[in-house]
Amino acid sequence: MISKKMQEQVQNSSVIRAMFEEGKRLAGIHGAENVFDFSLGNPNVKPPEDVKKAIMEIVNDGEAAGVHGYMNNSGYEDVRAAIAKSINDKFDTTFTHNNIIMTVGAAGGLNVIFKTLLNPEDQVITFAPFFGEYRSYVKNYEGELVIISPNTIDFQPNLDEFKEKITPKTKAVIINSPNNPTGVIYSEETILKLSGILKEKQKEFGTDIYIVSDEPYRELAYDNIEVPYLSKYYENTIIGYSFSKSLSLPGERIGYLVISDQAADFENIISAANIANRILGFVNAPSLFQRVIAKCLDAKVDLEIYNRNRELFYNALLSYGYECIKPEGAFYMFVKSPIENEAEFCRMANKKNILIVPGSAFGCPGYVRIAYCVAYKTIEKSLPGFKALIEELKK
Amino acid sequence: MISKKMQEQVQNSSVIRAMFEEGKRLAGIHGAENVFDFSLGNPNVKPPEDVKKAIMEIVNDGEAAGVHGYMNNSGYEDVRAAIAKSINDKFDTTFTHNNIIMTVGAAGGLNVIFKTLLNPEDQVITFAPFFGEYRSYVKNYEGELVIISPNTIDFQPNLDEFKEKITPKTKAVIINSPNNPTGVIYSEETILKLSGILKEKQKEFGTDIYIVSDEPYRELAYDNIEVPYLSKYYENTIIGYSFSKSLSLPGERIGYLVISDQAADFENIISAANIANRILGFVNAPSLFQRVIAKCLDAKVDLEIYNRNRELFYNALLSYGYECIKPEGAFYMFVKSPIENEAEFCRMANKKNILIVPGSAFGCPGYVRIAYCVAYKTIEKSLPGFKALIEELKK
Repeated sequence: MISKKMQEQVQNSSVIRAMFEEGKRLAGIHGAENVFDFSLGNPNVKPPEDVKKAIMEIVNDGEAAGVHGYMNNSGYEDVRAAIAKSINDKFDTTFTHNNIIMTVGAAGGLNVIFKTLLNPEDQVITFAPFFGEYRSYVKNYEGELVIISPNTIDFQPNLDEFKEKITPKTKAVIINSPNNPTGVIYSEETILKLSGILKEKQKEFGTDIYIVSDEPYRELAYDNIEVPYLSKYYENTIIGYSFSKSLSLPGERIGYLVISDQAADFENIISAANIANRILGFVNAPSLFQRVIAKCLDAKVDLEIYNRNRELFYNALLSYGYECIKPEGAFYMFVKSPIENEAEFCRMANKKNILIVPGSAFGCPGYVRIAYCVAYKTIEKSLPGFKALIEELKK
Repeated sequence: MISKKMQEQVQNSSVIRAMFEEGKRLAGIHGAENVFDFSLGNPNVKPPEDVKKAIMEIVNDGEAAGVHGYMNNSGYEDVRAAIAKSINDKFDTTFTHNNIIMTVGAAGGLNVIFKTLLNPEDQVITFAPFFGEYRSYVKNYEGELVIISPNTIDFQPNLDEFKEKITPKTKAVIINSPNNPTGVIYSEETILKLSGILKEKQKEFGTDIYIVSDEPYRELAYDNIEVPYLSKYYENTIIGYSFSKSLSLPGERIGYLVISDQAADFENIISAANIANRILGFVNAPSLFQRVIAKCLDAKVDLEIYNRNRELFYNALLSYGYECIKPEGAFYMFVKSPIENEAEFCRMANKKNILIVPGSAFGCPGYVRIAYCVAYKTIEKSLPGFKALIEELKK
């Protein structure tokens, strides 16, 4: 028999599986090209040509040098040094390879850092709406996820409630900007206030509170909006980065942690994260792709493809009467459900062959998430359905 | 500050790190070519040429099909089907893709299955000597590792003690054959007796006890010795496989779980393992290498290279007066320390620039592990040191 904890997980996941099955069922009836699946954050934009070139180069001259072998659990030293340099060049920081741990994507990195930091019952704060997997990542290490309710005006974090909910048990705060599911980028003003509150509370309680910045969407920011680099604002900062979206490599599981040497207990965090990477079973980030991304640190997917999707989709939905904040980054829109029960709205959308995710999954009922990392044509073809949906509800 | 659990881990790991640092220090003094590092299981034999060919083929025509994208958390269905077929062809089993979950190596697979199965305080039995990481893999999920003391006659499991130590809390038994660190292959007789005991105890306690067979060394068996396929002997069998050694790809982190549909609670185990893969942060096994190994299921590293090392090393050590059982598989020898305190023996070896691992790390003091997955020349050059060591001790 499976463990009690996993029994709960299996039950909870049945909702998402049901949606997946519904999508397959619809595709069976209407043809896959007539089902509009906006439920997944699986990038449709191809990786930059540099990725293929890098793989070819490495495989052609790399095997003798053990390109598929084990290395230090934290990753190849030269790859980590190249990443540190690239961050320093962009953000005027002073990292070395010692600050970088290569991880199995950002999800692997977050698990490594929570394993490193959390004692049972330690609290981790997140701001709704948030990526639902944080629940599991924190629970894996017996931590408690504390959710700050959403600010649905502009989806910047609700800092008044944040201040109230910090306790002596608060060990970490997750920041996710550009945000999944809203596409909002936390402004520099927000970051300054937020880090100010943390500094105050650290002093008040005599504790260390770490910001864990989950940044898979950092490179996906439109209109040249700047995404503040957290370690410049707050000493106890740990950054979880991923190449899943910046290079469209989500299946390859490649990312890294940046652990600021300004962070309290830095040496122990580095040692422990190295061990956590090993004992959680990751062992190390995939070796070939460590070398691949080192050759692609200046490469980026074609953001204009997502931007076209964003403009089309956002403007169309607004013209039909939907309410939505314009996403500044990532490839999601967080749209207010025209009816209070957004799960019901998702079911109605299903009937128009449209698959979208209820906001409850992100701790923010009354809204739905639409992932627009799909073909332009898919969006175009889905628009009449969205129009009809809201018109029916207005009647 | 890091978590209490990780503080212990950081302290414990300092021994291994000390050895690693000692190796670097010796290399600095004597030159790397004069330091004989037998401490790591990092394969020196190159991957088969098929691996490179497969990477090239896939990358050349694969990108359009999303070769680097997300797939089902359990892995590509066609890859899993190909693996099932390959197992069926070899072992006359009847698996389908439904029985296979692609994992981040065997270490990832073991973590997924223990997360799936273990409630706090559940017991997992292992036979000394055993791969030391099992301690962490079980502790990650609050389980208790129960160690059966070694049978140093032939290093087959001690089944009398095994029988006594099974309790109503026993949830799983780890089998690792060919074994790390001894190189011993558990005989069919052993497997029959062992599964007989388990069946009896399951009945007695009214429980399900799963065999978790950790098989990264399955393909590394010399002299055509057969390694019994566990699911044929016992219904509650879960196999953790890895391509790390069979294809020399340890850095790429690619393996799979086989979950027999004869296993109790099969459907839930499959669902829960799929979710565990996701929430532990693996998400899925690396996508490119899923496709690569599917094209290399009949490929294998050149075993003769390890075999030559084995014959040279084993015969030489025996002729000097060392005691050791001849390894039948893997690339390790487990040699009796000429003095009782094997850690002291390892330190003496260090002075001859020889790096080997104390048996205590594998739950079997009085022995040392020698990994011979190194260049033939390294072994040759190290032999005078081994000879001198035992002669000094005989004086």
